[in-house]
Amino acid sequence: MSEFDLISRYFSTKFPQRSDVDLSIGDDAAICTVPPNMQLVTAIDTLVADVHFPLTTKPEDIGYKALAVNLSDIAAMGATPVWMTLALTCPEFNEIWLQRFSDGLLELARLNQVSLIGGDTTRGPLTITIQITGLVPLNTALKRNGANPGDSIYVTGTLGDAGLGLQVAKQQVVLSTLAKKYTLSRLNRPTPRLQIGQKLLKIATSAIDISDGLVADLGHILNFSNVGASLQIDNLPLSDELLESVPYETAIELALTAGDDYELCFTTPESEVLFIDSCTYIGKIEPDLGLRCVTKTSDIFIPKANGYQHF
Amino acid sequence: MSEFDLISRYFSTKFPQRSDVDLSIGDDAAICTVPPNMQLVTAIDTLVADVHFPLTTKPEDIGYKALAVNLSDIAAMGATPVWMTLALTCPEFNEIWLQRFSDGLLELARLNQVSLIGGDTTRGPLTITIQITGLVPLNTALKRNGANPGDSIYVTGTLGDAGLGLQVAKQQVVLSTLAKKYTLSRLNRPTPRLQIGQKLLKIATSAIDISDGLVADLGHILNFSNVGASLQIDNLPLSDELLESVPYETAIELALTAGDDYELCFTTPESEVLFIDSCTYIGKIEPDLGLRCVTKTSDIFIPKANGYQHF
Repeated sequence: MSEFDLISRYFSTKFPQRSDVDLSIGDDAAICTVPPNMQLVTAIDTLVADVHFPLTTKPEDIGYKALAVNLSDIAAMGATPVWMTLALTCPEFNEIWLQRFSDGLLELARLNQVSLIGGDTTRGPLTITIQITGLVPLNTALKRNGANPGDSIYVTGTLGDAGLGLQVAKQQVVLSTLAKKYTLSRLNRPTPRLQIGQKLLKIATSAIDISDGLVADLGHILNFSNVGASLQIDNLPLSDELLESVPYETAIELALTAGDDYELCFTTPESEVLFIDSCTYIGKIEPDLGLRCVTKTSDIFIPKANGYQHF
Repeated sequence: MSEFDLISRYFSTKFPQRSDVDLSIGDDAAICTVPPNMQLVTAIDTLVADVHFPLTTKPEDIGYKALAVNLSDIAAMGATPVWMTLALTCPEFNEIWLQRFSDGLLELARLNQVSLIGGDTTRGPLTITIQITGLVPLNTALKRNGANPGDSIYVTGTLGDAGLGLQVAKQQVVLSTLAKKYTLSRLNRPTPRLQIGQKLLKIATSAIDISDGLVADLGHILNFSNVGASLQIDNLPLSDELLESVPYETAIELALTAGDDYELCFTTPESEVLFIDSCTYIGKIEPDLGLRCVTKTSDIFIPKANGYQHF
């Protein structure tokens, strides 16, 4: 099967069609029109087999996650995703694998009305790169550099689940059936917080998605904003499944450093953001540089690791 | 060294800075502004080590070519390149390799004033994916589907050089020093025909870049336009270096099927496009479907191969 047959069978015809895509897959390049008063927001992320996911990961989950991690970057900017491109490198032409991979990718693309506007399929070790483009009203995008002393720090969802899920996938721990299912789902099918990101456009002073772990990613906000923070360790949102599966200290470590959660961390001068579902207050931005993790009894807590290192 | 140090040292600060890039590398995503009355043109291409280039290829040449093949797609649309993202997967952190790779990439990016707006660096088998975005005035982009019977077919530059260069790189042939240098340069440092593409905006009815070989790529124009063509084999532009190195029949085979030339093939109702440098008339679009390769004596010539197969 040629590249062209392959693309058209598995990818080009089934994705959402958007009216702002003037020319999609099939030419040298795609042609798109950007509405007036909107800016483009662009992110690119690669998943490498056996580095970013275990080799045993289901093809559907690989497809789903490859898009989810990119959508999460768009969410962290408060933007709305519109178009994606896919660079798929795989070792062989395997129709069953491609069908399952594209099923997972398609599921999340449809949920968010993202068009696939281009791609490249090549032979080689399994590597998936997706670039996603979003739109945001002019000069409203959320960035990392706007946190101010006195701002409250919030996170969405719960933290640490994906970190435990990775241990499950690698057969390093044995959990209850329910906890196993839940943590694997959090690892393989993270939920990009697009709606929350969009609601934050007029509220947040900074935002980031938690891909490398809370300590590392909040650290970027602090560095870019030239501020510090104190983090209330006992406030960290932890799922029942995480708490029932590991000791409390381990749960906290996972929440702070394991990464792969794809929740949002944001800062806001608002004292209450309870009108946004599933956000938890976890600390305050302070003028003194550095991140101080404190417990209810004001003990200083020092995480053992710093987050996912790419090299 | 962390991903962040790596990106900033080799990539983020040295590339051309454009005023339409509002936020570049360093946040979750880049933010760009599109001028009014312009459309976006987007292409993505992956190079895999040992598939798209021999393992002995110099890092500078890999960086140069990874961008060149993408710019060539932008050229084929008649667009002007503006922004790129880079997904770089490499097996180890090797400062010397990264420096040399980014030198090659940077050379071509500077030549064309392309900003690097984002990227992802990951650990794994050497794979380079670049996505490039260009701008083109509303509804003027060149496509594959507009060729009409009676149109003349042209190509830029010379064909087949890169095909021979690949044989040189793989040590399958021995050439004169000059021919070796020339064909390797054509393989490793193809010239994206951006200026010619832009000049074609008001002239060409269709255009494509020759990445998989003339027969395969002109075939796409014919399929998308629902027309056929006769190709004057003896008109094919062949370099002196190619002609001195291999028998004429081999040169023609390489020109028709070897690919990797990154010249443009286009159709136009104009009988003369001599005001555009380095374009050669090679045939006519005809109503009868299919591609007929004929020689001066009207013999039918049937190429042995059909072009590069991705799978």
